[in-house]
Amino acid sequence: MRIAFLVEYDGTAYAGWQLQKNDVTVQQKIEEALLPLGKGRIPVFGAGRTDAGVHARGQCGHFDLETNIPAEKFAFILNTHLPPDIRVTKSWQAEEGFHCRFSAKGKRYVYRVWNAPHASALMGRFTTHVPEKLDVAAMEQAARVLVGTHDFAAFCAAGGSAKTTVRTVSRLEIAEKDGLITFTVEGNGFLYNMVRILVGTLIEVGKGKKTPQDVETILSGGVRKYAGMTAEAKGLTLDEVFY
Amino acid sequence: MRIAFLVEYDGTAYAGWQLQKNDVTVQQKIEEALLPLGKGRIPVFGAGRTDAGVHARGQCGHFDLETNIPAEKFAFILNTHLPPDIRVTKSWQAEEGFHCRFSAKGKRYVYRVWNAPHASALMGRFTTHVPEKLDVAAMEQAARVLVGTHDFAAFCAAGGSAKTTVRTVSRLEIAEKDGLITFTVEGNGFLYNMVRILVGTLIEVGKGKKTPQDVETILSGGVRKYAGMTAEAKGLTLDEVFY
Repeated sequence: MRIAFLVEYDGTAYAGWQLQKNDVTVQQKIEEALLPLGKGRIPVFGAGRTDAGVHARGQCGHFDLETNIPAEKFAFILNTHLPPDIRVTKSWQAEEGFHCRFSAKGKRYVYRVWNAPHASALMGRFTTHVPEKLDVAAMEQAARVLVGTHDFAAFCAAGGSAKTTVRTVSRLEIAEKDGLITFTVEGNGFLYNMVRILVGTLIEVGKGKKTPQDVETILSGGVRKYAGMTAEAKGLTLDEVFY
Repeated sequence: MRIAFLVEYDGTAYAGWQLQKNDVTVQQKIEEALLPLGKGRIPVFGAGRTDAGVHARGQCGHFDLETNIPAEKFAFILNTHLPPDIRVTKSWQAEEGFHCRFSAKGKRYVYRVWNAPHASALMGRFTTHVPEKLDVAAMEQAARVLVGTHDFAAFCAAGGSAKTTVRTVSRLEIAEKDGLITFTVEGNGFLYNMVRILVGTLIEVGKGKKTPQDVETILSGGVRKYAGMTAEAKGLTLDEVFY
């Protein structure tokens, strides 16, 4: 049977989701946690191949296993063998034909900026620090330009394998509270580094280095080098996968 | 002049605030961060001597130094030499007669419980995990018993140096959101481990092992062994010091 699961992780210590030759990854840790079942290496799939240092609250994964153990128990079994910075929060028997990656209809990412003169000791591993006071209203205006179905070629790092750079961003909201600025981004799919480049560009708008009009020009121009920097990995969290 | 400062820290890696012979502490790290000024060891004081593993958002400290450097600059100077899990968020010239510990009129602590079947990977270092569903209404009822001026001898660990065990708890509020239960406790002063024993006792009420009536009996009885366990250090944060 196919067992699906939700997993939360603090990505600080990991070289991302996907298996690597010389680095420790989240996929590797979950596959290792299945080894005590004595069925050899069981390949584990994930909906989003998060980069090194990126976190997840609601990453979804699956693996195939013939077993009499109820699917719901696997969250507990896996957590017994996983380190505390990786926690499976739920497991269940997947419906016929379910694939955590190919069945996904969309994803929500959350990006957090600590906008205060000094970085945060408590939120440091989950935020990127921007000491200059950001203009949230200007960033919101630029964000409205980006919502919708567009060719996001200007917001895509080299090295992706996508056939088309057209994507739909259905939500891009910015909230500020006590110096913590939260960017919530939902869409049907994201290009390589797209969320981090979107946020990096919005931060430059917030600093007054770019205008919302510039963002419109960058979007229609489709050239990566005119967009902003790629915001740091540690501010990004894969919040939820939609099916 | 006397320079006061606010400091935030993730206490996970530290043996508490106060200098220790064989362990690394927050006070030590701040004193070390002042060494590059070339004035030798400058003793640093803190308002609350937080225990090993306890965090702070708004710990207040001070030190004395004759210098031409504006007091406001010390937050930046200290952060240059401090590790990222300790951040000074503000520094200023203290008023005449100010002492971060003896001038304090009260403190607010926040205790966080992760009340879900599985622990949280993202909030794990700032929460204690309680898998059994807690009865928040019962805990709130018991909390009301504890608010006010009482002899808190039953909620005090051995080893404290207090002359009296009478304290005033001016606020004890419990909030629940998406499995995160937050206990906010304010008072004019706290006995050794008092907040952790109060919360540990309330957790037992939440589990149905003790009733709000039991808590009234424990409070008036004044015997430590009848109160609940001492809740884990990592769930506790010194949130603010009042002057």
